[in-house]
Amino acid sequence: MQVDVDAVLPAKTQLSSSIKLADLTKLPAFEVVAVLECAGNRRDGLKAIKPVNGVIWGPGTASNSRWSGCRLRDLLVSVGVPKDLCHPFYSTPKHVEFAGFGDAKEDKHYASSIPLEWIMNPLNMVLVAYEMNGQPLTRDHGFPARIVAPGIIGARWVKWLKYIRVQDVESDSFYQKLDYKILPPMADAHNCTEFWPRFPALMELNIQSVICRPAPGEELQVGRPFEVQGYAFSGGGRAVDRVEVSLDGGKTWDLARIYTMQTKCKDGQRDWSAKQWAWTLWAYRIDHVPTGCTIACRAWDSGGNTQPSEAVWNYRGVMNNSVYKIKPPVRLESRL
Amino acid sequence: MQVDVDAVLPAKTQLSSSIKLADLTKLPAFEVVAVLECAGNRRDGLKAIKPVNGVIWGPGTASNSRWSGCRLRDLLVSVGVPKDLCHPFYSTPKHVEFAGFGDAKEDKHYASSIPLEWIMNPLNMVLVAYEMNGQPLTRDHGFPARIVAPGIIGARWVKWLKYIRVQDVESDSFYQKLDYKILPPMADAHNCTEFWPRFPALMELNIQSVICRPAPGEELQVGRPFEVQGYAFSGGGRAVDRVEVSLDGGKTWDLARIYTMQTKCKDGQRDWSAKQWAWTLWAYRIDHVPTGCTIACRAWDSGGNTQPSEAVWNYRGVMNNSVYKIKPPVRLESRL
Repeated sequence: MQVDVDAVLPAKTQLSSSIKLADLTKLPAFEVVAVLECAGNRRDGLKAIKPVNGVIWGPGTASNSRWSGCRLRDLLVSVGVPKDLCHPFYSTPKHVEFAGFGDAKEDKHYASSIPLEWIMNPLNMVLVAYEMNGQPLTRDHGFPARIVAPGIIGARWVKWLKYIRVQDVESDSFYQKLDYKILPPMADAHNCTEFWPRFPALMELNIQSVICRPAPGEELQVGRPFEVQGYAFSGGGRAVDRVEVSLDGGKTWDLARIYTMQTKCKDGQRDWSAKQWAWTLWAYRIDHVPTGCTIACRAWDSGGNTQPSEAVWNYRGVMNNSVYKIKPPVRLESRL
Repeated sequence: MQVDVDAVLPAKTQLSSSIKLADLTKLPAFEVVAVLECAGNRRDGLKAIKPVNGVIWGPGTASNSRWSGCRLRDLLVSVGVPKDLCHPFYSTPKHVEFAGFGDAKEDKHYASSIPLEWIMNPLNMVLVAYEMNGQPLTRDHGFPARIVAPGIIGARWVKWLKYIRVQDVESDSFYQKLDYKILPPMADAHNCTEFWPRFPALMELNIQSVICRPAPGEELQVGRPFEVQGYAFSGGGRAVDRVEVSLDGGKTWDLARIYTMQTKCKDGQRDWSAKQWAWTLWAYRIDHVPTGCTIACRAWDSGGNTQPSEAVWNYRGVMNNSVYKIKPPVRLESRL
């Protein structure tokens, strides 16, 4: 494996360097537990309104893993990128483009970019990862190395890393310029070319929560207890402050219990320095399942944002974070 | 004027320093155009659901100004705080507490804090400001110096600056611990003491938009054109991507024209390095005012968040960012 790193440095020095996997492991190793969500998670909810362009995912394209690798920041500093954000180098914005080995469908290869400023903040924990859950990356997960960009949509977590480029503009790849954008509702297959250039590429995830149990089709037994369970997270390092559950389809709400992996937060005190990258699992106990209920969940993040009650359709079917609802089938308790 | 700066530095050095206004102006001057919003903006919309604890503001407690001063980061570095976020000093989170001169109602003085990590990011533009719109601060605006914390709720923009303290915990003042929090809907005057410690202090603003014209009570003339106008912004440096307007109370939506002060963003490309701190003004032309319409607006930010369609009540009536609606009175066109 070899990753090419290119950057135009201060005083117009053109930097070009080839990094081997062994070089990555010489840099300090960092670990981060972070959620990876495809921007198309829950696309099925938008397709239910109108056809969308993309794979029709349910709520299953989100996962949470322990990633290890070096910080991309440290790699860039090791090849000469200034580490001080006050350096004149940063007076004009820069972007870091990544591309992966292998063919891509819509472009010459899969490429994407993230602002350099975001990467250079060491607390943002953008990694060149070579391990997932303590094991070397498998082929499917991006062996030998991939980008891990906590708090940012999965499309920027480029796998099978081929090159890293520091440049003045964002990536001009299909996947940056045309693919992952929330177009307004009047943009569709017929007129989207007019709208693509007017809207920015997605970066941070939005506030999200989903019910995993009951699973679709899972039957509840009337009168018995049931533990509703799910996940929640937000983007950009924002933490989930609370998750609420409704049993009447969104009319009244109660607090769910939440389980957050980060242990540095004390009760009632947001540890802002410790940004939140992992998902928050939650549970809500129903003591006696009623004969009919529509269960809903919604989360709130540390940016004061919550989920919209209804989904707003967009052509690419991305970033659906409307209040999640499920009406589980019930069966009467057996009296035998 | 004199501001006391205190910090426990690496190797347990206790730092204590007194800064005069003249010292502030010796540091490099920075300017930022930023929106200042009280977390209680639009509290009236929550009071309409149930009584709240606080001054019943309409949508007028938001403003946008050009602030000048030194960066708080540079001030802290000048007295010895390490500037590199990779320094071991940052391995445990720190907070910077500010207090203002003068009496406060609920505590010995007005105090509040922001995480040190946020302040040390030079791109976050937290200032010790001594000018507003090119003039020295007036008394009402915090003369001689105040905190300007772009993207963060107004309650942290402490005026009449008395001291600045770098410490291991967030401020324990009333205004940090008990005042500016979004409590869940079941928390009210009778049981709030149980909920205060469980929820974090507000920091970043949420996504917001408001209709300013028509103003409340402003009459529209049927059949004539009318230009709907308003403001929009989000928190944490997130930009407003789009503003939508509905003339049928939220059933159908169209794009408003938006005017953003920051000129570094190119069409369709978010300049992420240039975070967005100013508000976005917007306008929407109605060619022929119909006989009855409910005008609504909603904004979307670069974090993929939009405004909830209905307000969710909270005891302190803070952070109301539900879709803004107004049903203006109309008069028939004179046919004389």
